[in-house]
Amino acid sequence: MNKAVIAGRIRTVRRQMSKKRIGCLIITKPANVTYVTGFQGDDSWAVIAAGRVYLLTDSRYTEQAEKECPSCRIIDRAGPMAEAVARLAKRVESVRTVTVEESTSLGDFKRLKESVKARLRTASHIIETARSTKDASEIAVIRRAASISTEALEQTLSHIKPGVTESELAGMLDFQIRKLGARNSFETIVAFGPNASRPHHQPGARKLKKKDTVLIDFGARYKGYCSDITRCFAIGGMTALYKKVYDVVEQAQAAAIKAVKAGVKITQVDAVARQVIAESDLPVYGHGTGHGFGIEIHESPFLKADAKGTLEAGQVITIEPGVYMPGKLGVRIEDDILVTDSGRKILTPNCPHSPFLPIAVRDTKGKNKQYVT
Amino acid sequence: MNKAVIAGRIRTVRRQMSKKRIGCLIITKPANVTYVTGFQGDDSWAVIAAGRVYLLTDSRYTEQAEKECPSCRIIDRAGPMAEAVARLAKRVESVRTVTVEESTSLGDFKRLKESVKARLRTASHIIETARSTKDASEIAVIRRAASISTEALEQTLSHIKPGVTESELAGMLDFQIRKLGARNSFETIVAFGPNASRPHHQPGARKLKKKDTVLIDFGARYKGYCSDITRCFAIGGMTALYKKVYDVVEQAQAAAIKAVKAGVKITQVDAVARQVIAESDLPVYGHGTGHGFGIEIHESPFLKADAKGTLEAGQVITIEPGVYMPGKLGVRIEDDILVTDSGRKILTPNCPHSPFLPIAVRDTKGKNKQYVT
Repeated sequence: MNKAVIAGRIRTVRRQMSKKRIGCLIITKPANVTYVTGFQGDDSWAVIAAGRVYLLTDSRYTEQAEKECPSCRIIDRAGPMAEAVARLAKRVESVRTVTVEESTSLGDFKRLKESVKARLRTASHIIETARSTKDASEIAVIRRAASISTEALEQTLSHIKPGVTESELAGMLDFQIRKLGARNSFETIVAFGPNASRPHHQPGARKLKKKDTVLIDFGARYKGYCSDITRCFAIGGMTALYKKVYDVVEQAQAAAIKAVKAGVKITQVDAVARQVIAESDLPVYGHGTGHGFGIEIHESPFLKADAKGTLEAGQVITIEPGVYMPGKLGVRIEDDILVTDSGRKILTPNCPHSPFLPIAVRDTKGKNKQYVT
Repeated sequence: MNKAVIAGRIRTVRRQMSKKRIGCLIITKPANVTYVTGFQGDDSWAVIAAGRVYLLTDSRYTEQAEKECPSCRIIDRAGPMAEAVARLAKRVESVRTVTVEESTSLGDFKRLKESVKARLRTASHIIETARSTKDASEIAVIRRAASISTEALEQTLSHIKPGVTESELAGMLDFQIRKLGARNSFETIVAFGPNASRPHHQPGARKLKKKDTVLIDFGARYKGYCSDITRCFAIGGMTALYKKVYDVVEQAQAAAIKAVKAGVKITQVDAVARQVIAESDLPVYGHGTGHGFGIEIHESPFLKADAKGTLEAGQVITIEPGVYMPGKLGVRIEDDILVTDSGRKILTPNCPHSPFLPIAVRDTKGKNKQYVT
């Protein structure tokens, strides 16, 4: 990870720490550790102390850490994490109070209490708040993650044929993501027919029928950053109900996207989408209208009815209203949006956006894809 | 999930609870929630109270929960989890003390404290201990997960050719796992050449050379249960160093597997493998010699130098010693082992176990595979 980028993040975090009178912060949440160090592995903690940032890791990760974290002092712990923290706290003389992230487990906190001589306090959302607005380098990587997702879906469309199973189709999409040099942001959801009424359906052995519907919720993770897209298609024609639902969800999404702008209340964007669905006498979805994403697939801000605050420029969010009718159907449409001062930029503009299965047609240069429905 | 299986698990857990004088247990760790309810989703907690087991979930999961948890009372929470727990604790009249798993976050515990009127206590390892030894139905599913892994690797072997990237090869293996109706236990590791010296290397754009080595660490998750296999291959011949290392790791693994038996000290199995490597003057690995697995890819018991206790019949573990020489090579060999009273059963007996890339040859019935090196 670029030293200047990490240095900028640490400065922001230190400002927050000094406001909250935190001298030494122990970061235990993996995504937060990645943010302040660049480290992409697991089972490691970061410590921000007076003059330095430490990464406490173990031998499985030391070689990787040396490569990924040029700004950190890397500590190869052999024993328990709590003891490594205690030794470090002892070495850093000025440390009288150690602050631990609230996402730390009760068990880890108990072990820290037993080992560390300093006073222990807790704090929340220090790194999460910094992570919520993205800098230029993060936005560039998220854009690439979004375009890889789009390309992977396009490559998979020709495999959406009667007979394919949910599990196979998910596997094909995942393979395209890998081929494009990325990984999954989360486990791909492929749901045929009424299975789509479960928003988090796990792909199974159900085969696609001649007249059927498909919901695909997926994302590529590129250089540690996520993207998140949902698309729905109808195969071999559409029932009147499916068409109605699709149109309403599309309108709800468009209305919410139009409402996105720095300074707008988060609850307002959430309400706009729900209202379109409620006015059409369709069941209003129980999940949020969207969520921030970045290193984690779900991170601040969360677009829910009880959300606080306003959208900020540099936040990257999904807008994903849906309609779920158990036993009948499920439709969700999800795009990735960058919040700007003047409004928004859609990061997934070229991703097929029609309930009819599109056929990608490329011109001779492989650019300017067109969609024939 | 089978009602009788869940009932058996709840009986075991209740016995532990009554020993520790726990009347009401809040289970927050996803794998533990799955174990006591059968629920496979996320963001949900289980509560074991006097006469009943509750699943606190939200609208994204209610339909799934009705299907997966016939033994539970399902509560569809709209607001925060802590408030849902508070309402439940109020309803269950006898509850004066509520016990929370130690894996719960400090933040969640704080919110519970604010909402719940009852006294809060913590407890650890109640469900984890029960999960450590597997019943017949779990072993059957793990066996299938292991055989799917083996089959997926066999199907992928013909793609191990110069020019393929780590990322593509990982994608091909994952696709085979999907085709066999399973998912990944964890993100597949494919490491070419010296990349294998990082035990948790992430597959990248490196292409396989004509003379090269491959490490693949992967596993299929079937019906919620994991498997975990590592294999190493040398392409186009082997250096003397690689051959020496491979042989020593293979001997270390064989010695440790031979030591596995119910009643044997865990540290002894760990030591046996390390000793073989130390005696060959090769660097001894920093990770554990193995770990239990089941619903989680890493669970009790952990085969480490500071482990306590003995192996028990019904535990399912990996044995996976390795040798890592940064800039040069990495070799790890990992199989899945069921601990029995008389010794052990290898659950991955047919998985190619040679540094030479095997070619699967099937007889006309598609059975009795042979390996030609």
